[in-house]
Amino acid sequence: MIRILSISGSLRAQSSNTSLLQAARHLAPPDMTITPYDGLADLPHFNPDLEAVLPLPVRNLRERVGDADALLICCPEYARGIPGSFKNALDWLVGCTRFPGKPVALFNASARASAAQAALRLVLETMSAHIVDDACITVDLLAKGLSPKAIAADLAIAVPVRVALATLAAEVRRATGD
Amino acid sequence: MIRILSISGSLRAQSSNTSLLQAARHLAPPDMTITPYDGLADLPHFNPDLEAVLPLPVRNLRERVGDADALLICCPEYARGIPGSFKNALDWLVGCTRFPGKPVALFNASARASAAQAALRLVLETMSAHIVDDACITVDLLAKGLSPKAIAADLAIAVPVRVALATLAAEVRRATGD
Repeated sequence: MIRILSISGSLRAQSSNTSLLQAARHLAPPDMTITPYDGLADLPHFNPDLEAVLPLPVRNLRERVGDADALLICCPEYARGIPGSFKNALDWLVGCTRFPGKPVALFNASARASAAQAALRLVLETMSAHIVDDACITVDLLAKGLSPKAIAADLAIAVPVRVALATLAAEVRRATGD
Repeated sequence: MIRILSISGSLRAQSSNTSLLQAARHLAPPDMTITPYDGLADLPHFNPDLEAVLPLPVRNLRERVGDADALLICCPEYARGIPGSFKNALDWLVGCTRFPGKPVALFNASARASAAQAALRLVLETMSAHIVDDACITVDLLAKGLSPKAIAADLAIAVPVRVALATLAAEVRRATGD
C-alpha cells in the first residue's frame, strides 16, 4: 500500500482545497490510501527557541509526514502568498530529518492562484522536497461550491486527478525501488 | 507626534530582526514614537470562518495597525519564504479597512534574505500598503549577535536607520498634509 498524507492549506470548513483532497480520496487507486492531516490549526507559531523540546503537535506533524510515502498538498492563495498557517507547518518541517526527498504532488484548486503556487514551489525546493511535476495539476473549483462527491463525479476533474495519483504512485514505487 | 508600530517577523528571543527594531527605537527622531507589536504569537491561525466574530487578539492587531501612522516591519526569511507566523498576521489584516494606503517601511536584517523580501513586497502591494521605498533598508546583522544598543552605536547601521526613519516621517507628514 502507498500511504499518502494530504494537507489542505485552508482551515475554512467549506474549502474547495479540502474538498478537492477529499475527492482525491474517493478517486485513489486501490493500492493507495490518502489520509488527511488535520492538525494545522493546533500547531504553535514556529519559533526556533521551541525546537529544543518539540511541542506535541509538531512531533505529531513530523511523525505523520515522515511515515507517509508522499505528500499531497492543496493550498489556496491569500494576498498572492502562501497562507501563513500553512507556511507555519512548513517552517516546522524544515528541521524534520525525514522531509528531504519526500515526493510531493501539488494540487491547485484555482487557475488564478499562480503567485502562491510559485512561492510554495520555491519554499518546497529549498526544503529539498521532491516535487513530482507530472503529478501536479490545476483544476478550477473557485466559487463553484462543489461537494467532494460532485468533484469526484465530474470527469473534467476526476480524470486529471486519477492520472496525477497514478503518476505519484509510480514515482513512489520508482523511488523506493518497489 | 508620529506614531510608528514596529512588527518583527521573528518570535525568537534573540532575534536580529527584533534587535534592529529596538535599535531603531533608540535612533528615532524626537517627534516619532516607535512601539513594538508583540501579539504575533497570540494570533489564532487565520480562518475566514472566524471573521464573523473576530477573536480578541485580531481586534487588537487591527486596532493597533489602524491607529499607527505607519508600520515598520523587519522580517526574517525562512526557507526562502515569509515566516508563516508573520504572514498569518498579514492574512488577518487583509480584512482590515484601515490597512490600505498605510505607509510601510521594510527593514531587512540580512543581505541574503532577498526571496522573502520579494514575497513580502508582493503580498503588501496586493494588500494596497503604501511601501515607502526610500525608507526601506538592508543592513547585515546576520549571526553578529549585536545588542540593540550596539547596533544603535554602529554608525554603518545607525546612519541608514536614521535616514530611513526621517524619510518615513516626511512621507507620513506629506500623506497627512501636515
